[in-house]
Amino acid sequence: MATSEKKKEAFRATLTTVLERRLFFIPSFKIYGGVKGLYDFGPPGCAIKQNITRFWREHFVLEEAMLEVECPAVTPEVVLQASGHVERFTDFMVTDMKTGECYRADHLLEAALEALLDDPKSTLSEEERKEVADTLASVEELDCEALGATMTKYGVKAPDTKNDISAPFPFNLMFKTSIGPKGDMVGYLRPETAQNIFVNFRDLLYYNGGKLPFAAAQIGQSFRNEISPRAGLLRVREFTQAEIEHFLNPSDKNHPKFSNIKDLTAPLFSRELQKSEEKAPKEMSFGDAVAQKMIANETLAYFMARTFLFMQNIGIDTSRLRFRQHLEHEMAHYAEDCWDCELHSSYGWVECVGLADRSAFDLRAHSAKSKTDLVAHEKFSEPRMEEVLEVKPNRKELGVKFKTAMKAIVEQLAAMCEEDSMAVKAKFDAGETASITADGSEYELTASMVEIKRTMKKVSGRTFTPSVIEPSFGIGRIIYCLLEHAFYSREGEGNEARTVFRFKPLVAPVKATVFSLMQRDELNDAARALSAALTAARIANIVDTGSTTVGKRYARTDEIGVPFAVTVDFATLQDGTVTLRERDSMVQVRLPSDEVPEVIGGLVREATSWEQVVERYPEQAAAGEGS
Amino acid sequence: MATSEKKKEAFRATLTTVLERRLFFIPSFKIYGGVKGLYDFGPPGCAIKQNITRFWREHFVLEEAMLEVECPAVTPEVVLQASGHVERFTDFMVTDMKTGECYRADHLLEAALEALLDDPKSTLSEEERKEVADTLASVEELDCEALGATMTKYGVKAPDTKNDISAPFPFNLMFKTSIGPKGDMVGYLRPETAQNIFVNFRDLLYYNGGKLPFAAAQIGQSFRNEISPRAGLLRVREFTQAEIEHFLNPSDKNHPKFSNIKDLTAPLFSRELQKSEEKAPKEMSFGDAVAQKMIANETLAYFMARTFLFMQNIGIDTSRLRFRQHLEHEMAHYAEDCWDCELHSSYGWVECVGLADRSAFDLRAHSAKSKTDLVAHEKFSEPRMEEVLEVKPNRKELGVKFKTAMKAIVEQLAAMCEEDSMAVKAKFDAGETASITADGSEYELTASMVEIKRTMKKVSGRTFTPSVIEPSFGIGRIIYCLLEHAFYSREGEGNEARTVFRFKPLVAPVKATVFSLMQRDELNDAARALSAALTAARIANIVDTGSTTVGKRYARTDEIGVPFAVTVDFATLQDGTVTLRERDSMVQVRLPSDEVPEVIGGLVREATSWEQVVERYPEQAAAGEGS
Repeated sequence: MATSEKKKEAFRATLTTVLERRLFFIPSFKIYGGVKGLYDFGPPGCAIKQNITRFWREHFVLEEAMLEVECPAVTPEVVLQASGHVERFTDFMVTDMKTGECYRADHLLEAALEALLDDPKSTLSEEERKEVADTLASVEELDCEALGATMTKYGVKAPDTKNDISAPFPFNLMFKTSIGPKGDMVGYLRPETAQNIFVNFRDLLYYNGGKLPFAAAQIGQSFRNEISPRAGLLRVREFTQAEIEHFLNPSDKNHPKFSNIKDLTAPLFSRELQKSEEKAPKEMSFGDAVAQKMIANETLAYFMARTFLFMQNIGIDTSRLRFRQHLEHEMAHYAEDCWDCELHSSYGWVECVGLADRSAFDLRAHSAKSKTDLVAHEKFSEPRMEEVLEVKPNRKELGVKFKTAMKAIVEQLAAMCEEDSMAVKAKFDAGETASITADGSEYELTASMVEIKRTMKKVSGRTFTPSVIEPSFGIGRIIYCLLEHAFYSREGEGNEARTVFRFKPLVAPVKATVFSLMQRDELNDAARALSAALTAARIANIVDTGSTTVGKRYARTDEIGVPFAVTVDFATLQDGTVTLRERDSMVQVRLPSDEVPEVIGGLVREATSWEQVVERYPEQAAAGEGS
Repeated sequence: MATSEKKKEAFRATLTTVLERRLFFIPSFKIYGGVKGLYDFGPPGCAIKQNITRFWREHFVLEEAMLEVECPAVTPEVVLQASGHVERFTDFMVTDMKTGECYRADHLLEAALEALLDDPKSTLSEEERKEVADTLASVEELDCEALGATMTKYGVKAPDTKNDISAPFPFNLMFKTSIGPKGDMVGYLRPETAQNIFVNFRDLLYYNGGKLPFAAAQIGQSFRNEISPRAGLLRVREFTQAEIEHFLNPSDKNHPKFSNIKDLTAPLFSRELQKSEEKAPKEMSFGDAVAQKMIANETLAYFMARTFLFMQNIGIDTSRLRFRQHLEHEMAHYAEDCWDCELHSSYGWVECVGLADRSAFDLRAHSAKSKTDLVAHEKFSEPRMEEVLEVKPNRKELGVKFKTAMKAIVEQLAAMCEEDSMAVKAKFDAGETASITADGSEYELTASMVEIKRTMKKVSGRTFTPSVIEPSFGIGRIIYCLLEHAFYSREGEGNEARTVFRFKPLVAPVKATVFSLMQRDELNDAARALSAALTAARIANIVDTGSTTVGKRYARTDEIGVPFAVTVDFATLQDGTVTLRERDSMVQVRLPSDEVPEVIGGLVREATSWEQVVERYPEQAAAGEGS
């Protein structure tokens, strides 16, 4: 293992110890041995999550006047058939031929290839090494058969037992259940929150007065029955998504507020840059990226920029953020453009937000399956002359020839798409008859029975299926990366390392700790009174009247990232002033106790900065940090 | 049907129309025909829910410094075996013998008995009527067999087909699934959020510094596969619970903040009052109720009082609230006391919050199943002399007699409960031998091998299983009752009825609507600028620049309960003032546009009252309400 890898693992081990000891996360059902891929948020983790989702609502839902919905996770099969999840939401799995243990095929192959490259006793030729490396880079592109062939070629075995493994086969990642008492209605736990919005499109459009564009949003749990969860908190079986579906007219993907963000820059790792020699993202403004057609349209770029600002606001280290464009093979055939907002962590780059222009795929799929129009109407500012294809049945002749079938034939003619109509016209033009199928029977039509022609027509509007731009946030992954970005060590008492989370006040699980300098009733009472005043101002706080040194108590509060500490001492009892200490600078000021709630409230709301506080109040020598 | 019933149904029909039209709720997966018992919160419903859960966190979690957690809904079987849900979380079901349709047995029986009583051509004698009425009142008390016998006696048939029905049998209400790829790990969707807290008790106690009492809380989805969901939003298959588990020392159930609420009064419907002649609750202070032992202890009463205040704060009509104590047959055998906070609706009284003293049942159950100590330690303020039973094995004699089995026998003797030890002692005292089982074998002991005696010992503390007080909120039911309590009609244009929700600003889905008086660019721009200023102050608002009359636009915003409306008119362009109108009084004042965000912000935070606003700013004649 390279030194940098070892450093990363040491960092992660230190972090994980703190996260588990201070209950940021707990393996779920721990007293029963736990369940892989399921975690609980303990008190500080839960508070951070609340703070982040609340800010997400303000930053996205409130700011863009989005229509937020909240829908069940239990989903009937038909919805996920329409979306394609029943058929295609799979990973390839292999099983140990003797024990039946299950593995993700791609993970096994990757591990085997990495081991081959890392083997110090390797006898591979340069050419062979290159082939292995190329295969490793493209594992995600292999289909089931190719994956199996490659695994056979490299003799991949079950990792724990070295037994033979089965050929890979697709395993559906949805949790299955049954709805109702009869056992005849298959249901699944939703694998994403997006589908609830698509199926409600018609009602939401109506709620919005029939006007486009508009966005709907949902924050909620999604479920994926991962074959073999690993990478700790990054790949779990139940997680919180925050998804936005921004519906718009496919002929106008500009965004009215684009000018607000066009000069903002971010590291963009386009498809071309990924294939280039340097393989490095380029810092670029969103305005330029759209002008150069690197990002497909203004609306997609607008949400990328807003995502960047979101990350910055919650305290992500933006030097460890990049937007990576999907390569061709990663994108669904219908998608117009996709970018992932990736955050860097000790596991490497982690996809935390997917931003995709999904065109009209989802609405069309649900429209077809449910036989419901999921469309919008556009009224042109003035009527236009447009060439249209007119299909005019000769009802009289059709009636004479086909009797009661006439009605079905006329309906079928009206329903034909342009391509089919043109094919019929081509037959007639060639002097042939054309056969059409109506109501299950076939009919031969002659040219005199239908007139098909292109004609100019005055049209005042049109009906169309909207496109959708989808920013999809994995809240748990963002939180995990934030924890990594915020974590650091500094020297504490007797030179022992002391760990700190540099959470922004907005995100910090607890905003202030109130200390009493010593274990005395009058000091403890004063501390509790100040805590009550903070609570009344809706500021999350804890009181620590413990008997250890101030230094140790600071360490305890730093360890969960409390940004401010207030200490009540004997002077407080005389003049009502207290000490306020900021976590990262460790600077302390002296201020009247009754001004504390307002000052901390302002800092948390980001209405005031710590620098302003330091200017306003006298600084106090930082006693006690190392004692 | 009685007139009052008809009125209730008419009220509900009007309400439901508004709720569905304005997307407070939408039947889930509507375009696919929906799924019974699953509903979506549309934009206003979702916003109300957010506001209520946010306030719940402030009122309970923040105020009491509770430890909030967030855990998965997917739960392994063992957890729900321990809690008893796998065995006992059932309703009795009957099926139509020909069609297989499923029904809840108790519902069918109740409907049949009600029909019998309501039948105008009834030939029942007075005595028979009384018997039917008594049976009806006690349906919930019947076990499976008695329910079947009663249904047979009254000849209950399938309601739709009149076919014969099966005998009732228990149907488990949990949604079942499978965790992981192997298919060998049964899981369920949690039927309540409480179990996640119990299984984390040990870690949470540690987080709290080993100190009792403390409370943990969780807000999240729970799932119940109802046999035949009815009563609209009140009985659904997926719903949000907010549960608190307050752990405390069973020997001290007083609450430090009890004095804050002891004089608060509420309608208490005790077990005795339910059995009394009047069958009516009594308005009583919580202090008196505890003093009279009507409510079992201070902590339970404290949470009842806080629940009352919660309901009052979110705008529940407290004249339609009561606390009903569980009757003996409703309470689990281990429960010390249970009260439901019931809200009155057009469906009758609805259980919205359950408040129970569950003693040590849950922790003991998980402790036994997981073989993990779920206990707390109490250090006495000073050591006490206590009589203890001492069991002192004579190792030498036991070793000589039983050789290597000695160790197992000694361990077994140490592990015996007091009752078993006393039984052994009784045998010895009677000159007999006593047999004990250790490691699967039986051994005969004589008096000389073990000394068993009561002795006084200095003890400095004790280990015990904490009791738990559980307030459990059904958020969806509370919201539904709130919608009923807030809904009213008043005359609008041309005397047509206009519906209004009198939501408190805290709860209202949208806090302000900004109107432009007429469709003019400069007015619309001013309206949008004001909306942006409100958004910047984090106040949810909508802009309505529609071209209908002001009266119609007020009606539209009243209909979703927006408390404040701001109108921008031509004077605004001159002097920067706007009109601010309060929804229920319809009083309007004139104030500078740039003061609007602060004024509305204060009203929403309840820092200012509308009366104060009316005093501060000049009133304006209410033009346009009826035009």
